[in-house]
Amino acid sequence: MSETIRIPPREGHAVRMSAGDRVRVIDPEGGQVADVFAFCADDVSEYHSAEHTRVYVNRLFPRAGEQFVTNRRRPILTLEADTSPGIHDMLCAACDPSRYTGLGVEGWHASCQENLQKAMAALGHEGIEIPQPINLFMNIPVGDDWEIGWEPAPTSAGDAVTLRAERDIVLAVSACPQDIVRINAGSPGPIDLELL
Amino acid sequence: MSETIRIPPREGHAVRMSAGDRVRVIDPEGGQVADVFAFCADDVSEYHSAEHTRVYVNRLFPRAGEQFVTNRRRPILTLEADTSPGIHDMLCAACDPSRYTGLGVEGWHASCQENLQKAMAALGHEGIEIPQPINLFMNIPVGDDWEIGWEPAPTSAGDAVTLRAERDIVLAVSACPQDIVRINAGSPGPIDLELL
Repeated sequence: MSETIRIPPREGHAVRMSAGDRVRVIDPEGGQVADVFAFCADDVSEYHSAEHTRVYVNRLFPRAGEQFVTNRRRPILTLEADTSPGIHDMLCAACDPSRYTGLGVEGWHASCQENLQKAMAALGHEGIEIPQPINLFMNIPVGDDWEIGWEPAPTSAGDAVTLRAERDIVLAVSACPQDIVRINAGSPGPIDLELL
Repeated sequence: MSETIRIPPREGHAVRMSAGDRVRVIDPEGGQVADVFAFCADDVSEYHSAEHTRVYVNRLFPRAGEQFVTNRRRPILTLEADTSPGIHDMLCAACDPSRYTGLGVEGWHASCQENLQKAMAALGHEGIEIPQPINLFMNIPVGDDWEIGWEPAPTSAGDAVTLRAERDIVLAVSACPQDIVRINAGSPGPIDLELL
């Protein structure tokens, strides 16, 4: 039995998961980045941490079978399976209003940070700290001189990553609305969450 | 006129700086990592952010003349000058009690996180969020397969980085007490702060 939630383009959604629950984060149309955030359900000041995870796995991003840890170095998610090309990012902050202002956008623009805040608020969590996201399918090459690039997501329709909750969590996902920098390979698309 | 503060091995210290003030962070004996943190003085929930800085400079670490920005993407520090080999890290979390437990240490071990918390508390700032540090002189090579390494700091005695405050800040620095992983090239040493 499973349930699939469609996150419309440029929007976000949060779900509660119990320890042992699994979710497939699917790029249903291809070329789309999904910003993923995980918070401990009983204390949202503990959340997945990019900088602690890098130290934990000795890599810029975990491989299948490896785990993301929290800012207290406790496992929170296992990257169980990956049917995508395996290109993901854990170097870049979520896009936010100041990012779009810096890119020359006038007025409001949807952002992963606002999507996260709205999705968490809908579950009663206001005023959260903004963790550095797990940017699934995001293609940020690192050059020999440590320059980073901004390339289109290399996913095909239906590519997916399966994540297992290692404790009771709130998982938030944003279908990244970035349409100035071309990481979303054209126009931003939806993301599906299949709760297994 | 300048004032130099010696931070003893394994300890930390925080200072208030006004916009325009400069500080030289000096490795007086060589082979020592300095964890640096910068908080806005009027609101310590705004602080230097590794993930926003990488996006701002399109690199894993700023070059001389470039700036570190906050979690609201506003410049907070300029990397004005660097007389060291130019090897620094902005990928790894500060060492903390759980890091040393994971490395097999029994009982208490000094850590950059506790040094930061103590130094900030001494200036009246309790309960701060722990930012991902600017790890000056820390040698974390990134392999083609995205593996990260843990190499000794390549600094010689007297190597230094000059930082300019871009707003009124609290700057905290920890002389990293890591003595299990050999990033400090032997035993942990002191760090000097020369306030210019």
